[in-house]
Order: sequence, then C-alpha cells, then structure tokens
Amino acid sequence: MVAVQLLMAALAATAAQAQTFRRTAACPKLGCVFPPDQVNFIAGQTFDIRVEVQAPINGSQAYNGGKVDPNFKLEIGGKGSKLMDVTKFFGLKDPKPETYNFTWYEDLFAEEAKMPSAVNVISKSYRNVQLHKPGRYKVRLTFNGGETQEATWEVNPIPKCAKAKNLLFFVGDGMATSMISAARLLAHKTVNGKYQTHMAFDSAQGYGSQMTHSLDSFITDSANSASALFTGHKMTVNGLNAYTDSTGKPYNNAKVETIFEMFRRTTGGQVGAVSSAYIADATPAAVCAHTSQRSQYHTVIEQYLSGVTMNHSWTPWGGIDVLFGGGAENFIASPANGNVDQFDRWAEHGYQVGFNKTQLEAFTNEDRALAIFTRGNVSTWLDRHIYTDTLKYALQADGTQGAYDQPGLKDMTLKAIDILSTRAKARRTGWALMSEAALIDKNMHVGDVDRALGDLLELDDTVRAVLEHLKEIGELEETLVIVTADHGHGFDVFGSADTKYLKEQKEDRKKRNAVGVYERSGLSAYVVPQDVSPTTHEIFENPQGHFPITWDPRYTIAHGYAAVSDRREDYEVSKEHERIPSALSQDKTQGYFFNPNDSPEGFAMTGNLDPNSGQGVHSLVDVPIYAWSAGHELFRGVMGNVDIAFRVAEALGLGHTSNVTKPYKP
Amino acid sequence: MVAVQLLMAALAATAAQAQTFRRTAACPKLGCVFPPDQVNFIAGQTFDIRVEVQAPINGSQAYNGGKVDPNFKLEIGGKGSKLMDVTKFFGLKDPKPETYNFTWYEDLFAEEAKMPSAVNVISKSYRNVQLHKPGRYKVRLTFNGGETQEATWEVNPIPKCAKAKNLLFFVGDGMATSMISAARLLAHKTVNGKYQTHMAFDSAQGYGSQMTHSLDSFITDSANSASALFTGHKMTVNGLNAYTDSTGKPYNNAKVETIFEMFRRTTGGQVGAVSSAYIADATPAAVCAHTSQRSQYHTVIEQYLSGVTMNHSWTPWGGIDVLFGGGAENFIASPANGNVDQFDRWAEHGYQVGFNKTQLEAFTNEDRALAIFTRGNVSTWLDRHIYTDTLKYALQADGTQGAYDQPGLKDMTLKAIDILSTRAKARRTGWALMSEAALIDKNMHVGDVDRALGDLLELDDTVRAVLEHLKEIGELEETLVIVTADHGHGFDVFGSADTKYLKEQKEDRKKRNAVGVYERSGLSAYVVPQDVSPTTHEIFENPQGHFPITWDPRYTIAHGYAAVSDRREDYEVSKEHERIPSALSQDKTQGYFFNPNDSPEGFAMTGNLDPNSGQGVHSLVDVPIYAWSAGHELFRGVMGNVDIAFRVAEALGLGHTSNVTKPYKP
Repeated sequence: MVAVQLLMAALAATAAQAQTFRRTAACPKLGCVFPPDQVNFIAGQTFDIRVEVQAPINGSQAYNGGKVDPNFKLEIGGKGSKLMDVTKFFGLKDPKPETYNFTWYEDLFAEEAKMPSAVNVISKSYRNVQLHKPGRYKVRLTFNGGETQEATWEVNPIPKCAKAKNLLFFVGDGMATSMISAARLLAHKTVNGKYQTHMAFDSAQGYGSQMTHSLDSFITDSANSASALFTGHKMTVNGLNAYTDSTGKPYNNAKVETIFEMFRRTTGGQVGAVSSAYIADATPAAVCAHTSQRSQYHTVIEQYLSGVTMNHSWTPWGGIDVLFGGGAENFIASPANGNVDQFDRWAEHGYQVGFNKTQLEAFTNEDRALAIFTRGNVSTWLDRHIYTDTLKYALQADGTQGAYDQPGLKDMTLKAIDILSTRAKARRTGWALMSEAALIDKNMHVGDVDRALGDLLELDDTVRAVLEHLKEIGELEETLVIVTADHGHGFDVFGSADTKYLKEQKEDRKKRNAVGVYERSGLSAYVVPQDVSPTTHEIFENPQGHFPITWDPRYTIAHGYAAVSDRREDYEVSKEHERIPSALSQDKTQGYFFNPNDSPEGFAMTGNLDPNSGQGVHSLVDVPIYAWSAGHELFRGVMGNVDIAFRVAEALGLGHTSNVTKPYKP
Repeated sequence: MVAVQLLMAALAATAAQAQTFRRTAACPKLGCVFPPDQVNFIAGQTFDIRVEVQAPINGSQAYNGGKVDPNFKLEIGGKGSKLMDVTKFFGLKDPKPETYNFTWYEDLFAEEAKMPSAVNVISKSYRNVQLHKPGRYKVRLTFNGGETQEATWEVNPIPKCAKAKNLLFFVGDGMATSMISAARLLAHKTVNGKYQTHMAFDSAQGYGSQMTHSLDSFITDSANSASALFTGHKMTVNGLNAYTDSTGKPYNNAKVETIFEMFRRTTGGQVGAVSSAYIADATPAAVCAHTSQRSQYHTVIEQYLSGVTMNHSWTPWGGIDVLFGGGAENFIASPANGNVDQFDRWAEHGYQVGFNKTQLEAFTNEDRALAIFTRGNVSTWLDRHIYTDTLKYALQADGTQGAYDQPGLKDMTLKAIDILSTRAKARRTGWALMSEAALIDKNMHVGDVDRALGDLLELDDTVRAVLEHLKEIGELEETLVIVTADHGHGFDVFGSADTKYLKEQKEDRKKRNAVGVYERSGLSAYVVPQDVSPTTHEIFENPQGHFPITWDPRYTIAHGYAAVSDRREDYEVSKEHERIPSALSQDKTQGYFFNPNDSPEGFAMTGNLDPNSGQGVHSLVDVPIYAWSAGHELFRGVMGNVDIAFRVAEALGLGHTSNVTKPYKP
C-alpha cells in the first residue's frame, strides 16, 4: 500500500501535464529523447535519434530563467553492458547543437487570452543508425546538471525463417466494426436471421483487433496511425514516419524506416501504393515518406520517386514501382513545387504514366507505372456505379470536367499486383503493396454513410477478387494478405427510418417519429442481388459483386455518429453529391451551423463538437484486423497498432543482424 | 444475368414486406412454421413445433375473405428420405387445432389513422420433440389448397469427445468494443502510447466477433439475443427461448431447450445464474425460462425453481442451484404472483436464502443458494466504490433504504463458482454458470458512460479473479470461460473535454469549445493506480484491481452516442445519482425533452430518436467474444450469435443420438 500511496502523490504532480495542449509530445521532463521510452525496433531498422533540452521562459514549467544548459550527454548500452556515449556506440561524429525557441499555450484560457508560454531549446540529432542485436537497450540523457531522462528500447527477436514472400496490406481508412456490420446488412440477405452470403472479411483465417491511439493523444490522425502500422512506432498527430520535435519544421525530425522501405532495402523487392484518395494523402504517403507535417504534399510526391534527399542522409530507395490514385494537383508544375511537372519527371525516370482506366489496363506489366486518375480523390463507388450523374463534377488529371473512365479500388489493386508480381518474378524478389480504401473515412467525416459503406463494400469486393487472383497466379500461398483500419469513427445503426413518413411530416419532432427501433427496425429493406432459391437453395450471385441494388428503399437504416457538428438528418442517401452537413456562418467567428441545403427535408440536430468543427472526427474504438494465408496466425487476438508492423516484419523476415542492402533494379 | 433479373422482380414483390411493422415474424407467406427455415439444432435438443395458417381479412395481404382453410398438413423427413406426417415421424397424437384472430398495423400511417389489419388464424402445436441424427431435414407445410411453406433444418454433427467439463459464460450486457477501448483508456496507463497494464479481456486465447441481429429485426433486445446465445436459435424481440407466435399469449409459443437445460438434463450437472440486474431480467432469465414476453417476471422466478410447468410438458429441470442478483420485488408475495412469498418457497425447497454480502459469504458451499441483494438492480460499481453517498437511495430486499453491504459481480461470481464446484464434485458432475454484468447496458441506455465503464471494468476484474481462482482450485484446465455481449450501443470517445472551461462559459456553443480533438485530445487524465517505476520498470498494482482512482479529472473523455434522445451534456461524471438525460413533457403526447436537472451546466443537444424514446437504444454493431482454456480455439474469427451456443455445446459434448436424461440430485 505504501508504494501505491507514494505513487499517487507522484501522479498527482504529473497529472497537471495531462492537458489537451502539450509542450512537446513524449517530453514529460525538460529533456526529450526521440525515439522515446518503451519503443521497439525491428532488428536492423534504420532510425534517427534526437535529443532536446528545453528551458521554459515563463508559464507553469519556467526553468532557470529560460537559459538552456549546453552540457548534456546521451548514452546508450545493451542490457548488462556499461552505457557509452551515443557517438561512440554508433561510430558517429558529434553533431553540432542547434538552438532555437518556440511557444505554446498551456490551456484554452491561455489561448483565448493570447498568453503563450515560451521555451528555449538546445538539441542534437544523430542520423541514420541501426540496432542489430535483439534485446533491451538503455538510453540515458543527462542534462541540467545531473537530471536524467531514460528510455528503454527493445530490438525484437529475429525469427528463424520468413513465412511470406509477398505482402498485400489493405487499409480501410476509418473503418470501424460498426461500419462493417452496417455494410453487411445492406449487401447481404438474411433468411430468418441467417446471412445467405458473407463478407470476404468474414472468411479471414486470422482475426484480431488493434488499439489505434497515438504517442501524444488517444485520438489519432491517419498519418500518425499509418506510421504506427508501417514502422511499429507511434508518432505524433500529423507525423509521417518521423518523431515530431519542437522546431515546427517539417524535415528536421527523427525519422524511422518503414516495413516497405526495409523490404525494398533488404530484399530489393517491388513496392507499390494504391489509394482512392489523392495519392499524397497520409496513408499512402506513410509507405515511404518522412515528415512531421502530412500537408507537405509536394515533398511526399518527390519522396515516392527519390526517397529522402533533403537535409540528411537516409537509406537508399530507388523509387516506388507502382503508384495509383488521385491528386493530380500535386504533380502539376506550380510555384509551390518549384514548377516541376512530376508527370514528365516520372516519365523521364522510366515510368509508364496514365490518367484513366483504359490507360491503366493498357499498361505493360514489365515497367514501373504511375497512374493519377483525378484531381482530388477518386470518385466513390456509389458515384461511379449508382448516382453516375454526379460524375459531371469529376475532374480528370488535366482538369477536364465530366464523366470518364475512372477505375475503382479493385481495378487499381489487381493491376498493381500484376505489375509488381511480373517485375518481382523477373528480378527473383517478392513484392509488397499497400492498398487503401480512403473514402470510407472521408465520407464518415461528413456523415455520408451511404458513400462510406459503398467504398467499404468495394474494399471487401477487392479483397475477394484479390484472394481469387492470387490463387489463380499461384502466389496466394506465399503472400500475407491483411486488412485493417488506421482508426474508427463513432458510428452505429440503431433502427430503421420510414423515409416516406419522415418526408410527409412538417415539424422536426414529428419527422423523428419515422424512426423504428427494436422490433420496429424490421429486416433490411435494401434489395440485394444475392438470394437463395427456396426450393434448391441455390445462391444467386451478382456478377458485379456484393453490393445492394437499391440505396433508397422506403425503409433505410437509422444511424448516428458519436461526434457531430450541427446538421440536418433525413436518413436518406444523398443523390446529387456528397453530403456537406454543416456550413460556416457568414460571421466566421460563430463557427459552423447546419447546412440548409443538406438533407433539406430532414430534422435539425445540434452537435457536440467545438462549433469550429464542420464535420465529424476520428474516434478511440479498437479496429479489426483480418489476415489470410502466409503468416495469418500472427494476427489473432487483441494487439496494438505497432504490433502489426512487427508481425509483418516477422512474417516477411525483415529483421537482420547487420546492415543489409540488396541492390534494387528499377 | 437472366436469373438475376428474374430474381430482382421477385424481390421487388417481397420487398414491400420488409417493413418496420410485421404481421408475424418468420412468416413471409400465410403459412408459418416454427422453428423456421434454416435453423440448426444440437443433436437431441428439445423443442416444440408450431404451424399457423393465416387469412388476413383486410389490408394489403387480404386472403379468401379472411376464411382459414383447416386442411393443412405438416410433413418432415431426413435428407434423401420421403416426407412423412410430423405426428408419425415423432410418434405424437395429432393435436387439436386452435383458431383465433389478431390485428396489426401495416405502417406508421395506418397506426396514426388507427386502421389495423385483422387476421384469422388456425394453428397446431407439436410439443417436446427432439431430432437425434445429424444432418439435414426438410419440413413442409401444405396449406390453402396446395400452397407450401418449406423449411430446412439441420442437426449439427456430434463431436467425438468433449473438450470441457465446466462452463463459465460471462455476458457484458450491451458491451461494444468501443466501450472496452474507453474502459482501457480510463483504467490503464500508457507511456508513449504503450499500455503498461492490460485488460483481462486482452489476454483471451480465443478472440472473435459475433453478429447480434435477431429473427425479426436487425436490432435485437436482450431477451432475444440471450436466447440466441443460449439455444442457437434466433428469436423475436422480447422472446425468451420461444418462437413468438401470433396469439399474443406468453406461454403458448414453440419453446427451444437452452444449453444450460441440456447440460442439466444430459449430465445432471450444477447450474447457476448471477446478474447485477434484477434476476428476472432477460439475460439471466434466458438460462432456463420460456416465454415470448420477457416481462413475465413472476413466471421467470417460478421457472428458475420448477422449470416449465404451465400448459405443456417440457424437459425435467429440478431447480437452479445458485441464483444471485437483484430484484426482490419479484419474490415478495403480491396479488401479481398469487401471494406467494418466493423466499419462503425457495427455503422450503432447501435453498439457503441471503440478502447481503455478509450472508452471501456465510453460505455453505454444500447447499443450493438464493441471494437477492436489492429491490431493482444491484448498485453500480461506481456507486458502491466512489460516489458512495448515492447508496442512501439503495433499497434492501425488505425495502429498508440506505447503505448496506452489497456485493459486486466478483463477489457473487466467485461464491457461485465455489458452491457449484463443491456440489459438482460431490455429485461427480460438472457445472455451468452464467454471470451477467447487466448495468453496462442499463447505464449506456441513459448515457451514463462513467457508471457503464465502472461496471465494464468490474466485469474485467471479475474475469481476472475468476481465471486465477479456477487455477487455484485446479479447475481452469477443464473449464471453458467465455465473455461476450448480447448486443452493443452506438458509442465512442472522440476527444477530451476541459470541464473547467466548459463550466465557466455561459452560452451552449461556447461550452462546446471545451472539446479537444486529435492532438488536443491529449493523453488520458484519469489517474490510475498502476504505474511503472521509470528506473526498475516494476509495475505497481492496485490491490483493488484495475480501476481509475479519479473519475472527475479536469480533462474528461468527450464522447457521444449514435442514438440519442434530447439531452444536456457536460462531459462530467454524475456524482449524485445515475443520469436521467430526458424528461417526459407535461403534455405527454409531446414526448421527451432534455431533463433540466441532468448536467444542468452542460449544453443542450437535440436527439435523433422518436421523441417518445426517453433514452438510447441498442445497435447493430458486431460485438467481441473472448475465450479461455478448454475449447477456447472454437471461438476465433467472425461468427453469428447462434454459433456460440453450438460451439459451447460442442465444447461440453451436449449433443446426443438419443433422449438422454441423467438424474439430478438437488
């Protein structure tokens, strides 16, 4: 009991730091070590080390009049060994210290009063190092005349042999279990409560769930969580494979190598990324980009091609082999990217370049390929297949507006596999592909559940097609296929809504009577093409896959969100365009109110978010992970998001006891 | 394509029946068969069969002027065999037909206009039958001059040997994954994003998820879903182990034997039920009660003791061995229960009877025991441990008001195990216990997330204690321990809230500025007793288990619900009493508005539910299942709730090729 009481006193003292504003993430004391305490590494994973000694000038943590002490040292040692200076341990020159300052707010009152706290900093960075021997390491920063900040790092054991040659890593961005339950309800028919067909997800051989919170916050963004999935290191919100430091600069931070980079470096294998978002968006960017600011889109595009070349040395890269998605605006020459036309530049590097489905399908499988289908995001499945009139708003890469032959996630992923697999065979290597269903997330943000579920079903359809295709080309047995999400959104279905009744009512509260719960939820009224013959039990399949035929039945799903801005709700699919639930007030300081043009026949709801949020936000819920084939048994039970990177590394055999670099042939 | 098009035409015709109002569940045609098409059975599971032939007098399905045709027949046959009359197949006398009528509304317009549709019915019930041979059976009802309604039933294979001797089946009522993520955040500390301690759930050897929808609705209630978990048969909302027919009567329906009843009948084993709710509530009642109306509390109490004795023959029971929970009001003599004092009655049957924790602990482990600790539900963990002033409202079984020694779920469950295990050893049998954390659900209904999470953590703490205890008494290896939920609630955490800032603002929209999302969510500010020494990495444990010490930090979890009634939100724990978010308007026809006394300093939010709903409702989300020890490997991956009953039956070896009845010794 004594220990507990003492501890509580200690916790009471530190609890004041558990604020929604933070001086610097992973710096509980005034000395910071990146990577911080309790991180794991793949043996031979490349990373940078950075230390900061901070001296707040004012505020609750003011120290020494803001004067930083330049006499600090960083030591490291393996378990049972003596600590030695980090430069000696890694054989590095002692880097020059940097000094600078930054400001932050301690809480909302300070922010409203415009009373920042200022902090002086001295720092050093040690670049491009690796730890090879599995086991524990102790790291100690000694600063401010004897104070210490310690970190324990652990290098994971190296498995005797690899289980998989290839990796297909699907990310359903923002995909929580509640959305999968809803998608199943819409697209699969039940008879007396028993589903007659199943999601491809439901067939997973390995099934688990993972915790998505980040280093600095229990709610992650997609950069941070994709970095955790791909490096095994939790990052700060908005950080891509780099520990955000206090400089505010995008390229100064301590980087960590991703499993895709390690796969390329240690095996010379083929690497690709596919997304239905603009391709500089956080999840695909996390395959190989390094910056604390995910918004550095032009650099992300450059890093796909050339790797990290700015500021500091990094591991060899050689260019991504396949890159398919949206976001032509980040490739076009503009003052913001130094007037470089990236399409030309990639073509000069030997890439096939395409802009629509026809060109995608015409690509040879022998050469590297870049295909950017749209400005902004690729159109959603629902827009491409059901409400195709909305395609009149679609923008091709060259800015032409109107409907054209856009591919979907399945088209992109299957073609990516064919190119990677063909090239890998020619080079006697494996391949690793990341494929992201990005628009689940983007549509959950705006409460457009129909578009989100359409894209979720497209992901499921893609997984089904990919498993079949890999079997056909004889590569299923040597390929690890996983599907997971980077985070969820608070969402659920709780009943049905009689949209006919809702529309006919004049008052908001009367409209809400349209909602039926429990037995009045009834059965799904979404018509699906799969049905079972009552006599032969033969199952009818839709050649287009498992999607509902109707998205506007009279009885729709009544559903809601945990985090909401002010909005209207009519429980109907938005046929004309993606939903825009909230609109900024003319007096912008008033924030967002409901958009009178969204669900105009619905009832108004007030939100629970900061009124400056015009859409929903990510949530805490653990998300599912599904795995098939080589190494699937590693993905069972409850795990952290970082564990996924380590288990992928285990399956692919990425750990090494020395600095392995295999030549890569473009 | 032709097949699909034809099918779509057929579906368009049936889609009109997919309404929020239903004539009778599982009766797509005018002839109904219970159990319906596509159900599975454990070999030797006892059940009733019921057929109805309906003739609507008016409405969209009007038939033959409402005249029922008494010439119908029901046939059954195994796969490949000829169909024979059901009476001959089972060796039964032909039962007398019943005739009656009922009314229903086709939709909300009809209900508001008070225009019911009336239906005449003729029916027959075939009671107390079993199917022993594994495989498929075809069932055919021929009615209305040659029309047919067919059903395929399947009897599951019988495993060669049982994997488990004992069963401990935990139900976290209403527990969705999002709540487990939130509970972990509150009760377990992270260092740089890595949890230092873990939920007991997280250690599960088997992990999966299950679909909770019911026979008649995609949103289940707790009676229906507990029946699915315990019988392998999905039921209609409010039904307890009985297929709800169209009579509206509570005891006429076709019953199905539960795994607990089968365990008792086929092994003579010990059976117990524990709940933090009133013990006649749906989940514990589903252990052995049979009625289409879960609200038949007095009958449920009687069925715990005597089994099914009303109206129809049923399998032998002999009384539950252990029954611990709340709800003394259903035991006390009153006109509603025929003035029977059930406490006296159970004592006469040899039960030890107790009313508080002291008496619970004083029970001998040799004799059967009934302990009813409260009127209504047992107090929540939060009220019993943190806000103990609220116990002044607690009511003992005899009606005395004020704080007293109430046990928690852990106390009840451990004592139940000791009694069951001791008695089982003396009789050379196994034991089966259902233990329900009921107040997770009850508090999620009213948006009292703190009380819900306190009780979720108590369930986790109970699981941890039980696994240790079973190991200590040498029974862990032969016991299957599972934890699952019967359904979820739409809920999630999406950020943090600065409650100090919120309180100081005057306007609702300003109050909402208190919410911080993404990096402004920060780290959990709930202080937990577990912490890790930064030098020795020793973990401090709280002898009271893994619960947060503070429930009212300045920065709380910002959270929301998918289904909400009008309410106020202040993101703070309610210290005086359970939350009552909505209040019925004085003009009751206006429904519920926000309760001005709940979260009075919070901001107002309008709901998305029918205004006659004063609280939240259940949701669609798939819920997790965790399993340990004997047979845990059966509970991996995605499954239906009914599969759980079948896998438990497989683990315990409940299937038999003949009508096995082992004598039970009280």
